Amino acid sequence: MNELTINLNSRSKKPLYEQIYDYIKSDIQTGRIPYGEKLPSTRALSRHLEVSRSTVELAYEQLLSEGYIESAPYRGFFVAQIDELYQLKKEEQTAVKKVEKKRKFKYDFTPNGVDLNSFPYNVWRKLSKDILIDDKTELFRTGDPQGEYGFRCALSNYLYQARGVNCSPDQIVIGAGSDYILMLLSMILGRKHMIAFEDPTYKQAYRVIHTIGYETVPVMMDQYGMMVSELEKSGADIAYVTPSHQYPTGIVMPIKRRMELLKWAYAKEGRYIIEDDYDSEFRYKGKPIPALQGYDAQDKVIYLGTFSKSIAPAIRLSYMVLPETLVEQYRIRGSFVNSTVSKVDQLIVQRFIEEGYYERHLNKSRALYKNRHDVLMEALKPLEDICEISGEHAGVHILLTFENSWKEQELIEKAEKEDIRVYGLSDYRIREADNEKATILLGYANMKEEKIKEAVEILNRLWR
Amino acid sequence: MNELTINLNSRSKKPLYEQIYDYIKSDIQTGRIPYGEKLPSTRALSRHLEVSRSTVELAYEQLLSEGYIESAPYRGFFVAQIDELYQLKKEEQTAVKKVEKKRKFKYDFTPNGVDLNSFPYNVWRKLSKDILIDDKTELFRTGDPQGEYGFRCALSNYLYQARGVNCSPDQIVIGAGSDYILMLLSMILGRKHMIAFEDPTYKQAYRVIHTIGYETVPVMMDQYGMMVSELEKSGADIAYVTPSHQYPTGIVMPIKRRMELLKWAYAKEGRYIIEDDYDSEFRYKGKPIPALQGYDAQDKVIYLGTFSKSIAPAIRLSYMVLPETLVEQYRIRGSFVNSTVSKVDQLIVQRFIEEGYYERHLNKSRALYKNRHDVLMEALKPLEDICEISGEHAGVHILLTFENSWKEQELIEKAEKEDIRVYGLSDYRIREADNEKATILLGYANMKEEKIKEAVEILNRLWR
Repeated sequence: MNELTINLNSRSKKPLYEQIYDYIKSDIQTGRIPYGEKLPSTRALSRHLEVSRSTVELAYEQLLSEGYIESAPYRGFFVAQIDELYQLKKEEQTAVKKVEKKRKFKYDFTPNGVDLNSFPYNVWRKLSKDILIDDKTELFRTGDPQGEYGFRCALSNYLYQARGVNCSPDQIVIGAGSDYILMLLSMILGRKHMIAFEDPTYKQAYRVIHTIGYETVPVMMDQYGMMVSELEKSGADIAYVTPSHQYPTGIVMPIKRRMELLKWAYAKEGRYIIEDDYDSEFRYKGKPIPALQGYDAQDKVIYLGTFSKSIAPAIRLSYMVLPETLVEQYRIRGSFVNSTVSKVDQLIVQRFIEEGYYERHLNKSRALYKNRHDVLMEALKPLEDICEISGEHAGVHILLTFENSWKEQELIEKAEKEDIRVYGLSDYRIREADNEKATILLGYANMKEEKIKEAVEILNRLWR
Repeated sequence: MNELTINLNSRSKKPLYEQIYDYIKSDIQTGRIPYGEKLPSTRALSRHLEVSRSTVELAYEQLLSEGYIESAPYRGFFVAQIDELYQLKKEEQTAVKKVEKKRKFKYDFTPNGVDLNSFPYNVWRKLSKDILIDDKTELFRTGDPQGEYGFRCALSNYLYQARGVNCSPDQIVIGAGSDYILMLLSMILGRKHMIAFEDPTYKQAYRVIHTIGYETVPVMMDQYGMMVSELEKSGADIAYVTPSHQYPTGIVMPIKRRMELLKWAYAKEGRYIIEDDYDSEFRYKGKPIPALQGYDAQDKVIYLGTFSKSIAPAIRLSYMVLPETLVEQYRIRGSFVNSTVSKVDQLIVQRFIEEGYYERHLNKSRALYKNRHDVLMEALKPLEDICEISGEHAGVHILLTFENSWKEQELIEKAEKEDIRVYGLSDYRIREADNEKATILLGYANMKEEKIKEAVEILNRLWR
């Protein structure tokens, strides 16, 4: 081939070399220029098209680097052999069906609510601003995979004082949310474990662990929490528990059961307890219940915590405290994984803790939630003859257990018709329970006091 | 027991009820008050200690909720039976050995460098400030697990224009870093796959996938990248490739090999190609090489990208583009996992792209890196008789391949003695290669021009 006629548009935004490249590429793709064909020399083509030689060279180089043409020394450029050239994917996408939007209820007793009106926006903005001014390049370099050391120091102090958790900063690993922390933990532990869950349980953790591919087993609970005798029988070597405030039943695991659980872990090499301390901050009566981790004398408890509940869901900041025995394992199997939390966010939360804002925020939230809790308990008094209330004095939801004649689904549907969303305990069950009494969860964190009163009044009428 | 003598300190910061609680708890823990012992009634103890009855009630309630005592209706409070009470973990931690600090070199040719002096701090600060003012509670609510929709729209536009990637926002999943994206992808794909890697390869991805627990297999490369004939023999059903700019060799996979690779994927149900497009932004000659994803007509390519290289390592923001066939799988197995990136960060990067800052930043970085690239290439001219240079014109490192008489380790050690850090290709190999020619990587992104010249001058002297 000696000539290639290309209509160049010198007024186009597209550079000339790119127009030449596009033209030749398209001709090769459609087969108009066949395999083996020699292209005109750069000199000839540049003369023919009346462009500079370097323009043509640039086009040929691009075709070369993408493999459409090949160069033979002293002979020139030839169209390369391409077995089968698939068409470029069509630009138009068939519109993907949108996921259906969740119905919005007038009254929503979600147990996962967080009140964000009390969020300290001004403090957050100020800290964020200060941090972005203070630092420069250091702030945007790769951080410590485990989390910034200063932040881990602040956190280990806080955990000791507030939760009785004993740890050094070296045992703490920071991550973007509790789901991620479980994924990272699975890399550290390896896959050959059977993990026992309380039943009912925190389904989100259960789903993550299940989907990662672990064998899981539900273990029955009594009034004190997970039954250690059943745990022993289950064959599991890791127990996932929420001892300070069982989710969703609200049971506080008493000291006796805690000791039994630790004893179970001590009895066999390789057993571990995962303590998820997800909402211990909210207790409205007396002191917070200390963490199980603080009682562990043989390095068997993996402690999980999060700021998503206590600050805001969009703060993607959770952490785990590894027992010493697993720190070494983390160094080998997990420490090469880059941190998932930006340094900026870590620094904001560090100062938030160190400068006392976190404590103030917690106290404020606790007072707010306590008030809603009290309003709800008061409003529920007329229902005391048809259901039993449990799980009060802590967390952000309570449970109503009904007599046998009631069906959970019926209670929920009746409420829905009046634009009230309530939640059934069966959603939190791993195994379906027969003959279980209908149990409804009412969360109050994100509901105004007036709305609580209104909604409960309607429920009292509906459920009778 | 009728009396308990407790020395209360009314001037202590600790509330009186907590002092009573601490005292009784400690007595139970040490066995001074044995199992079954009846505690004094709240009325008796309050009179005895001269405190209000509610103070004692509060202390008892706390002991009750933690399970140290039990209440028997009409009879009073009794010490609970606790099999074995483990001591609280000792407060003092044996100091954990600090991880040894990495040596700092005067000249460091790291291939993972990023120049942060050109980072647009002011823009970042401004966007961050604007976003925190604009929004209120919405910003701190739980976000879309897949990533904010607006951000995904901006990203899909960018990917189409800049990389020839065809996708709708529904195919994009945002995550905090490429390591996390691979962890999430593994949940979507399930564990029953054998994953082929180019050898040498991007070791970080290899380690993550290996540690997750996948069977992996290294596949030989020729001058065009991964050999499809070898891939076919390997038995793998997923191929992890870097076609636009192979890491670390810098090979651009030509169109013929790309088609062969796609053909391999089309040949069997369930085969996939993972295209890691980690640094396609940096090409100093001609146009960027389009992504393989754009050629895929049968939904077989999973496209991975990141902002950590192109903006800053501490920006924990990567993404994957799933083929339609895997979007449904994601809905089932991955969409319940909460997003790992805060909304604030997503919004900052969205505006960064939409308002043209990203393009400007890329152009600035590209010009900066090109200059360093050119300086390095010029400085290396005197070494051309002892080694061959490859991988130039793109990315942020080049390779020097030496004649047989040289040993890689020797070259590295000689450099280290003069405070110069260079990197050996063998670090990137999965399988050890026999008789391989010594190959050194020189990264230049984070090295000032003067330093490049100085260091190469020393190397030229050393390596002769």
